[in-house]
Amino acid sequence: MSLPTLHPTFHEIAKRVNNWGRWGADDEIGTLNLITDEVVREAAACVRSGRRVPLALPLQQDGVQTGVIPGRVNPLHAMVQINQEIFGPGTVACSDDAVTMGLQAGTHWDALTHVSHSGKLYNGRPADTITPHGGAEFSGIDKPRHVVSRGVLLDVARARGVERLEGGHAVTPEDLDAAEELAGTRVRAGDIVLVRTGQIQVYLAGDAHGYAYPSPGLSVRTPEWFHARDVAAVANDTLTFEIFPPEIEDLWLPVHALDLVEMGMLQGQNWNLEKLSTACGEEGRYTFLLSAMPEPFVGGTGTPVAPVALL
Amino acid sequence: MSLPTLHPTFHEIAKRVNNWGRWGADDEIGTLNLITDEVVREAAACVRSGRRVPLALPLQQDGVQTGVIPGRVNPLHAMVQINQEIFGPGTVACSDDAVTMGLQAGTHWDALTHVSHSGKLYNGRPADTITPHGGAEFSGIDKPRHVVSRGVLLDVARARGVERLEGGHAVTPEDLDAAEELAGTRVRAGDIVLVRTGQIQVYLAGDAHGYAYPSPGLSVRTPEWFHARDVAAVANDTLTFEIFPPEIEDLWLPVHALDLVEMGMLQGQNWNLEKLSTACGEEGRYTFLLSAMPEPFVGGTGTPVAPVALL
Amino acid sequence: MSLPTLHPTFHEIAKRVNNWGRWGADDEIGTLNLITDEVVREAAACVRSGRRVPLALPLQQDGVQTGVIPGRVNPLHAMVQINQEIFGPGTVACSDDAVTMGLQAGTHWDALTHVSHSGKLYNGRPADTITPHGGAEFSGIDKPRHVVSRGVLLDVARARGVERLEGGHAVTPEDLDAAEELAGTRVRAGDIVLVRTGQIQVYLAGDAHGYAYPSPGLSVRTPEWFHARDVAAVANDTLTFEIFPPEIEDLWLPVHALDLVEMGMLQGQNWNLEKLSTACGEEGRYTFLLSAMPEPFVGGTGTPVAPVALL
Amino acid sequence: MSLPTLHPTFHEIAKRVNNWGRWGADDEIGTLNLITDEVVREAAACVRSGRRVPLALPLQQDGVQTGVIPGRVNPLHAMVQINQEIFGPGTVACSDDAVTMGLQAGTHWDALTHVSHSGKLYNGRPADTITPHGGAEFSGIDKPRHVVSRGVLLDVARARGVERLEGGHAVTPEDLDAAEELAGTRVRAGDIVLVRTGQIQVYLAGDAHGYAYPSPGLSVRTPEWFHARDVAAVANDTLTFEIFPPEIEDLWLPVHALDLVEMGMLQGQNWNLEKLSTACGEEGRYTFLLSAMPEPFVGGTGTPVAPVALL
Repeated sequence: MSLPTLHPTFHEIAKRVNNWGRWGADDEIGTLNLITDEVVREAAACVRSGRRVPLALPLQQDGVQTGVIPGRVNPLHAMVQINQEIFGPGTVACSDDAVTMGLQAGTHWDALTHVSHSGKLYNGRPADTITPHGGAEFSGIDKPRHVVSRGVLLDVARARGVERLEGGHAVTPEDLDAAEELAGTRVRAGDIVLVRTGQIQVYLAGDAHGYAYPSPGLSVRTPEWFHARDVAAVANDTLTFEIFPPEIEDLWLPVHALDLVEMGMLQGQNWNLEKLSTACGEEGRYTFLLSAMPEPFVGGTGTPVAPVALL
Repeated sequence: MSLPTLHPTFHEIAKRVNNWGRWGADDEIGTLNLITDEVVREAAACVRSGRRVPLALPLQQDGVQTGVIPGRVNPLHAMVQINQEIFGPGTVACSDDAVTMGLQAGTHWDALTHVSHSGKLYNGRPADTITPHGGAEFSGIDKPRHVVSRGVLLDVARARGVERLEGGHAVTPEDLDAAEELAGTRVRAGDIVLVRTGQIQVYLAGDAHGYAYPSPGLSVRTPEWFHARDVAAVANDTLTFEIFPPEIEDLWLPVHALDLVEMGMLQGQNWNLEKLSTACGEEGRYTFLLSAMPEPFVGGTGTPVAPVALL
Repeated sequence: MSLPTLHPTFHEIAKRVNNWGRWGADDEIGTLNLITDEVVREAAACVRSGRRVPLALPLQQDGVQTGVIPGRVNPLHAMVQINQEIFGPGTVACSDDAVTMGLQAGTHWDALTHVSHSGKLYNGRPADTITPHGGAEFSGIDKPRHVVSRGVLLDVARARGVERLEGGHAVTPEDLDAAEELAGTRVRAGDIVLVRTGQIQVYLAGDAHGYAYPSPGLSVRTPEWFHARDVAAVANDTLTFEIFPPEIEDLWLPVHALDLVEMGMLQGQNWNLEKLSTACGEEGRYTFLLSAMPEPFVGGTGTPVAPVALL
Repeated sequence: MSLPTLHPTFHEIAKRVNNWGRWGADDEIGTLNLITDEVVREAAACVRSGRRVPLALPLQQDGVQTGVIPGRVNPLHAMVQINQEIFGPGTVACSDDAVTMGLQAGTHWDALTHVSHSGKLYNGRPADTITPHGGAEFSGIDKPRHVVSRGVLLDVARARGVERLEGGHAVTPEDLDAAEELAGTRVRAGDIVLVRTGQIQVYLAGDAHGYAYPSPGLSVRTPEWFHARDVAAVANDTLTFEIFPPEIEDLWLPVHALDLVEMGMLQGQNWNLEKLSTACGEEGRYTFLLSAMPEPFVGGTGTPVAPVALL
């Protein structure tokens, strides 16, 4: 185990947002504990029009990955049989397919174990409990089996009156406040917050490289905001989630480390929030029932997810 | 294109349940059209306790596939980096993973294109619109983007007073009637029906081969029942969905062909309905909001799914 | 089956080099039939110094593929266990790995079935004998089980006095004549010819895109040269093998179609011939025993290969 | 690093066969250093008839793996395009395929890093130099780039006058002596030895489980024999290479640890030696030029191989 070696600012914030032990020494799902039965009942009550908005990008080889992140490959989809008359000529014919992909390649959740720092994972587990044979022993993506709650769209781009935030814009707590005001609701315990920057438009327009970098993203100051509200999970419409390159020199991926390791809060990336933004604008409300179930890959440190918002 | 060559009984039933053209010549999602905004609103109203029950089996190499179905491989999960300090020693460390799997290997939805017969797919599309390069041009699993509706558990095992149906038991329309009566509701247009046989217990007890065969499953007479109720989708807790070997000699996979090709109705397999059965029994009701979003593999003929029932 | 629709020049050359039926109607290996026991004995006699030169590029994610060719993915290598003490603590520990890759992604052989034209494969087989379930029924890469013969390096770059041929240079029969003269041998029946352009230097210098395009390659006039010499197989150090874009407008991949379909002659691409060029220059001879065994993927239309030249 | 904890017998033998430092502290290829130019020249001189015998099993999903070894998956071969007219209708059409497989799944070489013991790899490298990101830093299968030498078939089954050795038969140094006598040659420095038990017949007859277990294999006493002869590499026709379960209680995989870690000698498994046995019997000699080139997977701990014997 290495000693804490990150920037002092990081460790100060970490102290303030740390949730280790909050749900017991054995806990593996962190802030998802905040989604109680009552929260789910209230989430269901948000369904008024019955409108449904899917938030996943299509899974295809022409996905958001550009090859820069080693091993994070776009889906390779291949047919293993096509109209195969397996019981003889003239019988019912079957088609089957297989896929190879990085679990963090498309619209995905990071598991709490997707990053570690100072030799530690969420809840103080040693980083070396992730092994090649079996993946994450604790807090793998198979552990959070029901990620359904009230969703709140914090449409930062709209709140700032732009189509999309510029590459390099750090989304601050003040931005979140403004978007919350636009949403006309107060983010509360157990909510899943979706932060819209509009950056995914760049990918949708065909420029995967421009989508990746430079990108707007969450500031290192936002974890405290999420912690104060007791948010259950946060996702946005960028590749890196947080502002990249970072705000503080040599402090890389601090938001990942604060959200996942310190708070134990699920993070999602590459979510397409464009149609949801339109729907929320049309309906004049920014809350909904959000279902975003992880595929339960045993020991996985991430998962593709096909979220849906029910308005 | 081959001529119709299946058993006459099949073609008689097919005529009665056929939905081709019902939602237009261009339709690619079939009975999912029956899930209207109103259906979703009513589904949300089923959420009373806020209890959540996940229905997916863990995705792991020790999955339900035994190697009998060529190319349908259990998930091979591998770490591509573990606690990798990609920005230098002492920085935040990342773990990433990749997977190879058959899209129909675990808890899954069949796309409407998973089977064809007589050279045709759902809505009369030629079978050869499925190609190695791109998969299913029409009705791929990327087309039905929001599979959320009222779910109804038809607990046939419980209705028959057994732990699980015996291998070889054909679930009949009369079985469905009895389970519907137990459920205390009438299955209606747009519902997603989950049929519990209890067969998954065999896999959960460690016997993947015994789970596969002999298995209870849906009778060739059930598609008419689903058609009469205008069901949107059906899933159960078996490997083959339908009774296997078939009831009528040399008529293999007739239920697949009727549900997917003729009706255009999604089918799900390998769903774990055991805890849902317990929950429904405890709460004394068998209806819930069901979210079962396909992962949008472009051109896919199936998809892993992580369904969740909200009671 | 489609009718012949390619450029008239193609069909004229095709007539002159066609080998269909030459080794019987059932033949699946084409010009490899020319490698007789006697050829192999003479090849072994070429081993004089005992020097060995491997010709494969390393197999890695940072390979020659840039994503332009759909589905032809660079190797994704992942450890599935690392130092796993599978028999208990303190026992011998095992490491295992898995890979996903396109069979034509790195240094490879094309199978005779890698291309078809006018609905036909080598020896007149219908193109639709390649299926998703099973791959190539005839002439798959599992059929040529021993690709070992006399190798001849035709070092066109050296013969022209350049480090490497320019992108866009079409290697002509006259170029091959000059390189043959430099080699001081006459190419004869059963030989495997390696044509060096030097283009692989661009990839080795880190520019995979520049390597791909623009590239020198074999002219549409070269198949007749190979046919006249009764060559068994040809490989070179480029991504596309032939000059690309093509010499004749709208006649794409004519050399592939002539070599593989008409002649039934194996083609190899992405071979690293740089060290071989050095060795041949130093030893003053350009012939050697070449072993370049395909991995016998059943039904495969290509294979990675790790060739070695013994001088 | 753990302390030596294996059976005392193991450590005694280990001391006698250890090659660490023999070819320098930086060496990564071990006994392959014994294959000198002279050895290769003499190997080439073994080619008398020109007869070629391939030794690889076909690579297919119905391979030797039964699912018992986690992550070691048989090849999943899938077409990613079939007769795709990528340049427009009527142009030359392309077929491409992709594969996912365990590197040790079929006929393969173990890299020296395939096993470790007491925290060490060959040449004293720490076991933790194998990482998920990059695989084996030292002695990966990309390091031995030319595995070509004189091959000697030690046909133990024939020497003992049986079709195949019984499951559980430990091949002893005395067995090797007898087979060497039958071969009419003395195994010498740099040779690659192929030990035939006949066990592969069980797989070829369709019984993958019976092939795996019980199996004949090499005794823990054989590494000293190979060490005395200064053999460069050894392969045989079994799944586990060595006798399994082991001869000494609780001493698992000792031959792997002696051959790979202590001696630094490549091991091969699942080689089909049946036709080679026939050929050697017919020609009355058991020596040949053997080419068995690893596919150079960077950091790989094993590789599929397609060996060929030239008689």
